[in-house]
Amino acid sequence: MLKRRQFLKMGSAAVASSLLTLPVVTAANTTATTALFQPNRYRVLALVFDDYETLDLHGPIEMLGHMPNVEIKLVGPTEFVKSYQGPRVVADVLMDSTYDCDLLLIPGGLGTRTLVDNVPMLQWLAAQVECSEKVFSICTGSALLAKTTKLSGVTATTNKMAYKWVTSLAENVNWQPKARWVDDGKFLTSSGVSAGTDAALYWVKTLHGEVEARRIETLTEYHWVDDSSNDPYAVSL
Amino acid sequence: MLKRRQFLKMGSAAVASSLLTLPVVTAANTTATTALFQPNRYRVLALVFDDYETLDLHGPIEMLGHMPNVEIKLVGPTEFVKSYQGPRVVADVLMDSTYDCDLLLIPGGLGTRTLVDNVPMLQWLAAQVECSEKVFSICTGSALLAKTTKLSGVTATTNKMAYKWVTSLAENVNWQPKARWVDDGKFLTSSGVSAGTDAALYWVKTLHGEVEARRIETLTEYHWVDDSSNDPYAVSL
Repeated sequence: MLKRRQFLKMGSAAVASSLLTLPVVTAANTTATTALFQPNRYRVLALVFDDYETLDLHGPIEMLGHMPNVEIKLVGPTEFVKSYQGPRVVADVLMDSTYDCDLLLIPGGLGTRTLVDNVPMLQWLAAQVECSEKVFSICTGSALLAKTTKLSGVTATTNKMAYKWVTSLAENVNWQPKARWVDDGKFLTSSGVSAGTDAALYWVKTLHGEVEARRIETLTEYHWVDDSSNDPYAVSL
Repeated sequence: MLKRRQFLKMGSAAVASSLLTLPVVTAANTTATTALFQPNRYRVLALVFDDYETLDLHGPIEMLGHMPNVEIKLVGPTEFVKSYQGPRVVADVLMDSTYDCDLLLIPGGLGTRTLVDNVPMLQWLAAQVECSEKVFSICTGSALLAKTTKLSGVTATTNKMAYKWVTSLAENVNWQPKARWVDDGKFLTSSGVSAGTDAALYWVKTLHGEVEARRIETLTEYHWVDDSSNDPYAVSL
């Protein structure tokens, strides 16, 4: 694993020219590690970046965080990461390595508008997808995924308010204009912001059954939109 | 204003015996300050503490954060505060002073179970309520409020899964067993976890009108439970 301190000493033209100070993670310098999580946990790794959308991240974390035996960690470009709404979170680890996990969360938000052009970040994300068992994007998080080319041939959805922009980034994705969420193989993609919370409960149901999903819905006094075809924000093409 | 460093040098038996290391804020040593927020903003101050419930905090922050001209800051007992679900937030300021604000958010969560016996924290909260224009509790955040005695004579609600416990803390509150949220004078109190997100949109509507609340509902692709009497988790007494 390339330590952040070592990296900073090394310097890098690619990093210096990027919008974020990120190490370039390639096959040559990436070593996946299991050290981040305790053994025998359901390992959720969530990506954070400046101007991520608050509920994209914390809605799913709320629901997933009530599953049995779960551990949730944040990975970001810097230790402190500021949401679009203002409050900051603490990244548990930096993008100086990739991390084996069971579920990779990718929120959206205004920050994705510049990150889609951040080559080192996209290289890191592509490598991180490879060592993630399942990948779950919320809102315009799918824009980042699309730019890694990992969504090629995948049926997916995204934020309906930013539908034109996201779908313009990768034409070889089978984009769905009407879906609260779509689960296709390795990728679970949700519609905008609050749709991620509903998709997270769907994922709890997939892993642990409906009784467990309903238990968490009740515990959080939530009104779960449990039908992925119930999408009042569907885009008319 | 009593600086945190000064306080730590002073020492305090009351603080030493408390569960959190908190300065005792009383009328004598509290000076409310406006320095925290930029001028002419709608100033939202949100309380955080270890084992706060993620969505209690971030659901309302999501909705309030899309209002025009808003600024949202976190206040906590320590710089880093860990949610019940694991991820940490950064407190912008500590409880070594109180802060003039327009809206004080008080989330709930497992952490309230011990905080209700934390006298210095409750003293700080009572003083903070005094310099907050409006106070909005989510879930068992109402337990903390109730223990300050500030809810005396107020019509209020709370988490329905913890209804017995919260209502046992203060009998002179007009507790409502069926309500998604209750707005009574200075206090807006919501039911459990996700109810806070619905109550936040209600508050946007109150401040800016229904068109603005619907704009934010659409922007976040949310299914707003906009009727405060729609409470499937109501408690039968």
